[in-house]
Amino acid sequence: MIELRKDPISSRSVIINDTRDFQFELDDTVDEIPMCPFCVGNEKLIPSPIVCYDKNGNKIDKYNKNWRVKVIPNNKPILTIEGNISRKAEGLYDRMTGVGAHEILIESQEHQEQNLKPEDFILNILAVQDRINDLKNDLRLEYILVFKNHGKNAGSTITHPHFQLVALPIIPRSVKEEMTISKKYYDFKERCLFCDIIDQEIAFGTRVVMETNSFISLVPFASRYPFETRILPKEHLEDFRNLRDKHKIEELAEMITSVFRRLRKALGKNVPYNLVLHSYPLKQDRIPHYHWYIEVIPKITKFSGFEFGSGLYVNPVIPEEAAKFLKEAE
Amino acid sequence: MIELRKDPISSRSVIINDTRDFQFELDDTVDEIPMCPFCVGNEKLIPSPIVCYDKNGNKIDKYNKNWRVKVIPNNKPILTIEGNISRKAEGLYDRMTGVGAHEILIESQEHQEQNLKPEDFILNILAVQDRINDLKNDLRLEYILVFKNHGKNAGSTITHPHFQLVALPIIPRSVKEEMTISKKYYDFKERCLFCDIIDQEIAFGTRVVMETNSFISLVPFASRYPFETRILPKEHLEDFRNLRDKHKIEELAEMITSVFRRLRKALGKNVPYNLVLHSYPLKQDRIPHYHWYIEVIPKITKFSGFEFGSGLYVNPVIPEEAAKFLKEAE
Repeated sequence: MIELRKDPISSRSVIINDTRDFQFELDDTVDEIPMCPFCVGNEKLIPSPIVCYDKNGNKIDKYNKNWRVKVIPNNKPILTIEGNISRKAEGLYDRMTGVGAHEILIESQEHQEQNLKPEDFILNILAVQDRINDLKNDLRLEYILVFKNHGKNAGSTITHPHFQLVALPIIPRSVKEEMTISKKYYDFKERCLFCDIIDQEIAFGTRVVMETNSFISLVPFASRYPFETRILPKEHLEDFRNLRDKHKIEELAEMITSVFRRLRKALGKNVPYNLVLHSYPLKQDRIPHYHWYIEVIPKITKFSGFEFGSGLYVNPVIPEEAAKFLKEAE
Repeated sequence: MIELRKDPISSRSVIINDTRDFQFELDDTVDEIPMCPFCVGNEKLIPSPIVCYDKNGNKIDKYNKNWRVKVIPNNKPILTIEGNISRKAEGLYDRMTGVGAHEILIESQEHQEQNLKPEDFILNILAVQDRINDLKNDLRLEYILVFKNHGKNAGSTITHPHFQLVALPIIPRSVKEEMTISKKYYDFKERCLFCDIIDQEIAFGTRVVMETNSFISLVPFASRYPFETRILPKEHLEDFRNLRDKHKIEELAEMITSVFRRLRKALGKNVPYNLVLHSYPLKQDRIPHYHWYIEVIPKITKFSGFEFGSGLYVNPVIPEEAAKFLKEAE
């Protein structure tokens, strides 16, 4: 199959082409530092925590050894918490002070990703929500990007499982694009684009990896990467923070764990990946056209000048086949 | 410095942050295949040539051993030359047949990139122009992306220097964005955005790597990658094919060679990189707002979930410092 497909959420075109040779790079190691800074006992290597959570997701004393999730400031942040936002011109150029926040959310005391359990993800979900709620009070911030790198190919430098939260003074490009496109769709159809996609995927069935009462995971029609997976709430919900129902959070944690298990079973236990949470900008009013979701992208192929120069992607695995593979992997 | 900068051509935001640790990956090797398919004597490994050029840039017999530039079809093309363009819906999704062309332009009989001379680049420029002129006759095509991968990190699988031409049935996303933005600027200012950037860069001087009568190379104000370089004609010219003046072509070839020499001198001889030609879509009328350019991007850093999820970039090298380094590297 050689086919161009367009992703309705981002309007990105992808070339699906399974006739080309490719080699997956299945290595999730990083250039390991001798002492893991996130393991218990090595606290002197990292900044003092912002907050710690216990096994019920409640805040506990920062120095309590029984933490289940710990949040620390990144000591080499992408953006810095100090200073005011100021915008300046340099001739026709635009510059802005690099104000924001960059936090590390240590997912568990466990050093190995594979050993994490759904309970750990429940606590991570609660911690992420709590951090977003806290950072939202800082009126300089517009968006909080929550993501995760696993393996060197995915940009990670530390093995111990951790999320990153980067709070930005602007709405990032990818989010802006999704907001604009889903708004256009809503204006035209008076329905949420994401809800329509979910209904359609359930009806077709060919790209669904798994479905529970409240969530669905699927391989996107126009996947950029082999085995890319999206996890969406079936019910319309624009903001990840508004997922408050305990049972639903448990269901989501189960689904995330299952997607990882399937990816490891399908591709091998050392699959490097990125995870990204797509959610609502902080200062927007409630809007009917956006719908939060999680994206899991195995980073097992390389980019070339083609992707870089065109903004298009070439995916050597047919999404329906990837979905079948992942569906049957459990 | 931690600063957000916006690229006026693409409207992309970049975080310039030189306070973070980073490690450059300076390895341009590829997983070498035993016999180079592009070296003389191994012709049986590749498809029959589309066209060959002699030392004056003239077409010669396909089987003449004295070729200086040889163009072959990619035997595992991204898009296929056969078939008609047809667009179909699948529910709310859009798909399109993968029609296009994918050619490999072997730059020289020389196997090692570093040994290429300005004369080789002159012949490559002429050959690229000739191939675009030929492919333009195929009315199914909308854009020809010319690019080059060097080193495994840049997506290359073959050491022997070669360009790739992918002829697309759509105008790719990146080009569309640049066209839209430069058009808006033109409508507002009645001047070419690129020409304004060039004038401003010459006036500031801090990001200029080198300047000749007709060309300028500079490190962009909002570089996404360390040591990223753009080469632009100083005179307004929207279409690369319209660069016909022999002396100017020589000047450009000299500048490309010099940029590579500087990159190798500054970063080491094994720097992996992508090169991309940004030029005019095939079917547009002449427009005053676009301006062709060449982009050279060393691929020495890794992407993480941050870049992936936000569409923003983090560059650990201040563009003005990169420019100074490259300027002084010769």
